[in-house]
Amino acid sequence: RKNKKIAIIGGDGIGPSVIDEAKLLLELYQARAGLPIDLWELDLGADRYLRDGTTFPNQIQIAIQRECSAVLLGALGDPRVPNLEHARDILFGMRFGYDLYANVRPVRALSDRLVPLKGRTAKDIDFVVFRENTEGIYVGMGGQFKRGTPDEVAINEDVNTRKGVERIIRAAFDYARANGRTRVTMADKSNAMRHAHELWLRVFHEVRAQYPEIQSNHVYVDALCLYVIQDPAQFQVIVTNNLFGDIVTDLGAALQGGLGMAASANVHASDPGRVALFEPVHGSAPPLAGKDVANPFAAMLTAGLLLAHLGWPEEERRIERWVSQALDKGMCTVDVGGTLGTRAAGAWVREQIAAELGPP
Amino acid sequence: RKNKKIAIIGGDGIGPSVIDEAKLLLELYQARAGLPIDLWELDLGADRYLRDGTTFPNQIQIAIQRECSAVLLGALGDPRVPNLEHARDILFGMRFGYDLYANVRPVRALSDRLVPLKGRTAKDIDFVVFRENTEGIYVGMGGQFKRGTPDEVAINEDVNTRKGVERIIRAAFDYARANGRTRVTMADKSNAMRHAHELWLRVFHEVRAQYPEIQSNHVYVDALCLYVIQDPAQFQVIVTNNLFGDIVTDLGAALQGGLGMAASANVHASDPGRVALFEPVHGSAPPLAGKDVANPFAAMLTAGLLLAHLGWPEEERRIERWVSQALDKGMCTVDVGGTLGTRAAGAWVREQIAAELGPP
Ligand SMILES: CC(C)[C@H](C(=O)O)[C@@H](O)C(=O)O
Ligand SMILES: CC(C)[C@H](C(=O)O)[C@@H](O)C(=O)O
Repeated sequence: RKNKKIAIIGGDGIGPSVIDEAKLLLELYQARAGLPIDLWELDLGADRYLRDGTTFPNQIQIAIQRECSAVLLGALGDPRVPNLEHARDILFGMRFGYDLYANVRPVRALSDRLVPLKGRTAKDIDFVVFRENTEGIYVGMGGQFKRGTPDEVAINEDVNTRKGVERIIRAAFDYARANGRTRVTMADKSNAMRHAHELWLRVFHEVRAQYPEIQSNHVYVDALCLYVIQDPAQFQVIVTNNLFGDIVTDLGAALQGGLGMAASANVHASDPGRVALFEPVHGSAPPLAGKDVANPFAAMLTAGLLLAHLGWPEEERRIERWVSQALDKGMCTVDVGGTLGTRAAGAWVREQIAAELGPP
Repeated sequence: RKNKKIAIIGGDGIGPSVIDEAKLLLELYQARAGLPIDLWELDLGADRYLRDGTTFPNQIQIAIQRECSAVLLGALGDPRVPNLEHARDILFGMRFGYDLYANVRPVRALSDRLVPLKGRTAKDIDFVVFRENTEGIYVGMGGQFKRGTPDEVAINEDVNTRKGVERIIRAAFDYARANGRTRVTMADKSNAMRHAHELWLRVFHEVRAQYPEIQSNHVYVDALCLYVIQDPAQFQVIVTNNLFGDIVTDLGAALQGGLGMAASANVHASDPGRVALFEPVHGSAPPLAGKDVANPFAAMLTAGLLLAHLGWPEEERRIERWVSQALDKGMCTVDVGGTLGTRAAGAWVREQIAAELGPP
């Protein structure tokens, strides 16, 4: 049986250093647990772009699609590159180019200490967001008319297709069914976006009828943000459009202890054989780069999502368990209340996992 | 000098009962403080619509505009009226029809007890959101193509004009300048909405240059939602588009103790003589209607915003102070930790204000 190939892109800012910790974790799994994976490091990001103008070359895009099971991406964004041109080429090049329509973002708190809400503990924060990842306002349709004049009009279009809406809603219900979750919540703004979200609402009602064992409701996205703070435990699976998913998962990250704790998977949910993209939710945080302070846990938890996707879900749980232990013991970075640097925090988690796995 | 006329629309669900408490407060000010105001109650809402099909008749719309200084609106929305048709006619009829481009929503916590965040007190939650109120995704532009087929496409357009963007950003900076606030934050999604929010970013940079004494920055709306939870005290004035303002102010309401505490003003900021619309941020909450349980404080605080707008800012502060006392003493409704009904909570605040105002 052929090894599974994983492309690794550290990217910009803190990206390379947190991805290093995740890569060492994957290498540990190669060495100690004999996981049949190969790692392929790619030199993409701001440095490369500034050196030779390369953002996301076609032959790389195709090679990844042909050869890889997954991509592990750190973060993109660098103050030397205006408008994030290279970042968008790479990130949207994969999300759109590989049609990875489900951006799956678990919002799970791994330590009571990190939950910012009074009277709540980690067990109250445990839901998964299914963010539509190929449509909506992200398609870039629209333009500017009479630019630079007092009469300027600037438009972005929120584009939704029956196919796109149906497959992400279905992915959320399928996930609930497969994972013993009993409730799916759709977040929309159908009271204002009457064309686009009338479609979402209509498809939601059609799809939910096919999952009679799963409770479901829809809430307006403004109310959702309120409820997520007031009563997070009511949520199990949230499905929503690209923009709202972006917003709700950053809000969710606040409940997990910050962006240093939030992992994500970009998958084509109905074809798990297709290459998938895994990235921490955080950005490149340029001011923190090279200082050994960035939290590696989001990247390491993201590696866990990747391993689960490739068929080793117990390793995702193992990584999560040891990250949780690290938080409880203070073996973590400053943003989550510890005193360790990036490398030491990553190493501590790996050592525990290595000990648990035993000799090769 | 002529009295100022205030149109009062209770609306649907809990609207009439919370507006009754606010109306009694305004009547108290007429009787005890001699405020030169006249109240004009209007019968609009779901009942009226179901009775005779009336939503927001043209002659009412014009009469309000000609004669009134302000409208005090409860809430609209009733399960008997599908798709909120009447609600939108009335609400958007005023917001758009009177060109009330600034939806001003203070996010201020009035009791430590209501702040849901660990380690934060009421003084940490004190900012004002300037939500653009006449453009964006709310204009309703777009449509559905091949509706009901597998090929359906549904689009809503986010429409932004130079004029609309500039005036709301300017309103935020003017407010900061006039109120001793030192920082303005713009929330956008210019990294995804490159046409629409390139305009926002460009105008923001132009306008801020004219307010050199005010610090300002822009953040992506997803990050804003995270920061509002992690470090709310950093925000003083937030300016953003219609949709993001809707989302951020519901999130803000969670920090204030829920929707029962959130007030709002819809104004044409550069022409304060024009009729303005005041409404609590909460909806009509049909299941709570007629049970004497709804929190009247959002409506009463909204009456405070109205009085400030009409020239009596000290009365806004007085109302806020007594609502804050009510919360601290538990003289409030169940949603904010008290045991009183709508009427008793409203009455308690009015009695304290009456005592303070003294005899007429
Ligand atoms: C960098 C940005 C374009 C991106 C997005 O909005 O999708 C990021 O916020 C994310 O959530 O992955
Ligand atoms: C009822 C709804 C259309 C409205 C809005 O989205 O503006 C409400 O949520 C608000 O914030 O006033």
